[in-house]
Amino acid sequence: MSKNFADMDGVFTNGIHCGVKKKRLDLSFIYVPNAVASAGVFTTNKFVAPSVTHTKKALRKRTLKAVIVNSGNANAGVGDLGKTHTKVMVNTTASALGLSPYEVGVSSTGIIGVPLPIEHVEAGIKKMLEKPKAKDAEATAEAILTTDTCKKMAYKEAKIGKKTIIVAGITKGSGMIAPNMATTLTYLTTNVDVSQAILQESLQEATADTYNMISVDTDTSTSDMALIFATGEYKIVQVGEELEQFKALLTDVMKDLAIQIMRDGEGATKLIEAHVSGAASKADAQKIAKSIIDSPLVKCAIHGEDPNWGRILMAVGKAGTKLNQEKVEVALGGECLFRNSEALSYNEDTVKTHLKKDTIIIEVNCNLGTGCAIAWGCDLSARYVEINTDYN
Amino acid sequence: MSKNFADMDGVFTNGIHCGVKKKRLDLSFIYVPNAVASAGVFTTNKFVAPSVTHTKKALRKRTLKAVIVNSGNANAGVGDLGKTHTKVMVNTTASALGLSPYEVGVSSTGIIGVPLPIEHVEAGIKKMLEKPKAKDAEATAEAILTTDTCKKMAYKEAKIGKKTIIVAGITKGSGMIAPNMATTLTYLTTNVDVSQAILQESLQEATADTYNMISVDTDTSTSDMALIFATGEYKIVQVGEELEQFKALLTDVMKDLAIQIMRDGEGATKLIEAHVSGAASKADAQKIAKSIIDSPLVKCAIHGEDPNWGRILMAVGKAGTKLNQEKVEVALGGECLFRNSEALSYNEDTVKTHLKKDTIIIEVNCNLGTGCAIAWGCDLSARYVEINTDYN
Repeated sequence: MSKNFADMDGVFTNGIHCGVKKKRLDLSFIYVPNAVASAGVFTTNKFVAPSVTHTKKALRKRTLKAVIVNSGNANAGVGDLGKTHTKVMVNTTASALGLSPYEVGVSSTGIIGVPLPIEHVEAGIKKMLEKPKAKDAEATAEAILTTDTCKKMAYKEAKIGKKTIIVAGITKGSGMIAPNMATTLTYLTTNVDVSQAILQESLQEATADTYNMISVDTDTSTSDMALIFATGEYKIVQVGEELEQFKALLTDVMKDLAIQIMRDGEGATKLIEAHVSGAASKADAQKIAKSIIDSPLVKCAIHGEDPNWGRILMAVGKAGTKLNQEKVEVALGGECLFRNSEALSYNEDTVKTHLKKDTIIIEVNCNLGTGCAIAWGCDLSARYVEINTDYN
Repeated sequence: MSKNFADMDGVFTNGIHCGVKKKRLDLSFIYVPNAVASAGVFTTNKFVAPSVTHTKKALRKRTLKAVIVNSGNANAGVGDLGKTHTKVMVNTTASALGLSPYEVGVSSTGIIGVPLPIEHVEAGIKKMLEKPKAKDAEATAEAILTTDTCKKMAYKEAKIGKKTIIVAGITKGSGMIAPNMATTLTYLTTNVDVSQAILQESLQEATADTYNMISVDTDTSTSDMALIFATGEYKIVQVGEELEQFKALLTDVMKDLAIQIMRDGEGATKLIEAHVSGAASKADAQKIAKSIIDSPLVKCAIHGEDPNWGRILMAVGKAGTKLNQEKVEVALGGECLFRNSEALSYNEDTVKTHLKKDTIIIEVNCNLGTGCAIAWGCDLSARYVEINTDYN
C-alpha cells in the first residue's frame, strides 16, 4: 500500500462512527502535537459556518496542533446553537489533548439547517481521543466524506537541500465545488520547519493554482477549508530555491488531491483539463480556463464525446478578457481544430479516440501574450441532475 | 388573435423557407421604410459573428430601415467566407428594398463552423422581397427559431400624453442564454418619434432590467442582438414623464419576451423568479439575484420541488456582495423559511403547493439597504443535459 500522511513522524489521526450518520464513519481528528507552524485557507462564501469562524480566529491567535472533523452535518443555519456546538467540539478536543481551544481547528460538513446531535459527537470525541496516538489515516480519509464515492489521499516526497521533505494530505468533495480562494475540506501535513507566515504564503500560492482552478458546478460551499500542519522535522531555507522547491511540492500534492475531487465530481465520467496559453496575462488565462470548464454546454458536449469547438470558442469569448478572435487556436487531444477564424480538417480518429478517454485535454492558444493557466473540470451528465434533484 | 408588431402602420415583415434548414422556415425580414430612429444592443462575447460586426457598424453610420435574418446557421467560425456571406445577404436585401447597405441589419443564428448555403439564402431573399409590404409576423416569429419549442411575441400599448404608444416585438432563444448587456435575437418596433440617442438609451436601460437578468445556462452566444425600429408616428417629449413612460412600456415588453425565453429554456419545466431586496445597492441585488438563478444546485432543488433554503443561502453568499449573514431572510412562495440565522417552522402545505406550480418565487431580503432586483431563471433537468449531449 502506498504511504499516507499518518506514516509521517509526529502525525496522529483516526476516524470513527459516532452517530451523526447512520452507519458510516463520521468523526475524525488529526493531531500534530509538536507542530511548529500551521496555516489555512477558507471559503469566500459570505455565509460561513461557525466551524470556519472559529478556525480562522484560532489560526490568527495560535499555531494549530489539532483539528476535529465531523461529516454528515454542517452545523450551519441553526442560529446560535451552531456556535455553541462548535465550542463543545473544540473544548472537548482541547481538554482531551491538553491543548488551548485556539490550538484546535474544527470542520463540520454535511446537511445544513439541522442541529448537530451534539451528545453523540461529544461522547465520540472523548472515546476517540482515548487513543490520541492512533495512526489510521484510511479511517480519517473515510470519515470526512459526504457524497464522495471514494477516499482521496496523496503523499509525495522531494529532496530539498539534503533532506527528504514530505507533503501529504487528504481531501473530500464531490458537489458544490467551486472553491475560489478556498477549498473543500483538505488537511495537509509536512515535515518542514518554516514560519507560520511562510507556510501561509505557500498554502495560498499552491491553492491559487490548484483548488481555485477546479469546479464541479460553480457552487461554493459555506464550510470549506484547507489546513496544513508542519511537524518541524527539517529546517529549510525560507527564501530562494529551497522555498520554491517546497512550494512546488505542496502545489503538486494539492493538484493531485484537487484532480481526485474532479474525478469524483457528482455524476462525472470524465476529467476535463483546459490548458490556456498565449493569453495577455496569467489572470486572463485563468479566467478563460475557468470559463471553459464551467460552461454547461462544453461539459455536455464532452459528456456526449463531441468535438464541439464552437462551444469552446463561445466559452473563451464570454470570459471577457483581452482577445483577438482572429488569432485564437483550439486543439482537442493534441489535434488542432480551429485556427485563423475557421475550422480545420483534422484526424477524426485521433479526436474520437481521445474523446473516449477519461481525461479530455482542451488546449486554447490566444497567441496574444505569455499568460498560461490550467483548470480542471468534469463533464455534466444527467446523473448530476438526478443526484441533486432526488436527494430526499 | 392578439395583436402583433405587423399590425403597426409602416411595419412590414415575412418569413419563408429557403433551404438552410430541411423543412422549417429559416429566412425572414422586418422592414420599416420610414424608420426615424433605430437602436441595438449586442453580445458581449469576444467572439462575434460577422452579422454582429456588420449590424453594429451600420447602426453607427445610419438609421436601420430593415433587418434580414436567417436561422439554422450562425455564419460564424468559417473564416473570411462569413464576412463575404454577410455582405451578400446585406447587399441583396439593400438592393431589393432600394436601401443603402448601412440601412440593413443582419442576423444569423444556428450551427457554428459550417458554411452558409449562400445560394439558397440569396435566392430566398430575392423571392421573399418581391413582396416587401407583407405583414406576416407569425411567419417571421417562426422563421427566427432554432431549438425553441414555441414562437415568442409581445404587443403592448400605453397612453403617453394624448397618444397611444405601441411597443411590440419578437424574440428567440432557448439555450446558450446568458445575454449580459445584450440578448438573444430580439426585434422590436414602436410608433414613437424619438432621436436615435434616446432610443439607444431606452433600449440599453430596458435591456439591463430584463434580458440581462435572465439566464438558462450562463452561456453567452456569439451572435446575439436586439434591434428596435421607431416608425416616427407620434412625437413624445424626450425628457421627463413621457420619456419615463415610454421606457417603462419598452421594459414591460422586453420583460414579457425575456420571460417567454426562460419558460422555453432547454429542458425547463419551471420559471424561477429571484426577488432580492434590502441589498446594499442595486448592483449587489442584481449579483445576488443572478447568483441564485445561476446556481445548478438551486436549479436542481427547484426541479425536485424541494424547499432547499440551504442552497439558496449558499448562492446568496457566493455572490460576493456586502452581506450580514445574521440579517438575511429567505422566503419561498411567500412563506419565510429562514431568519435570524436559523430555519423557521413554516406552513409546509403552502410551500409544497407553491413548488408544484410552474412559476417559483424565491424572495431574499438582505435587510442592509435599499437595493432591489429581480432575475429570471429556470430549473435544471436531465432533459437539458440530454438536449445538449445528444444533438448529433
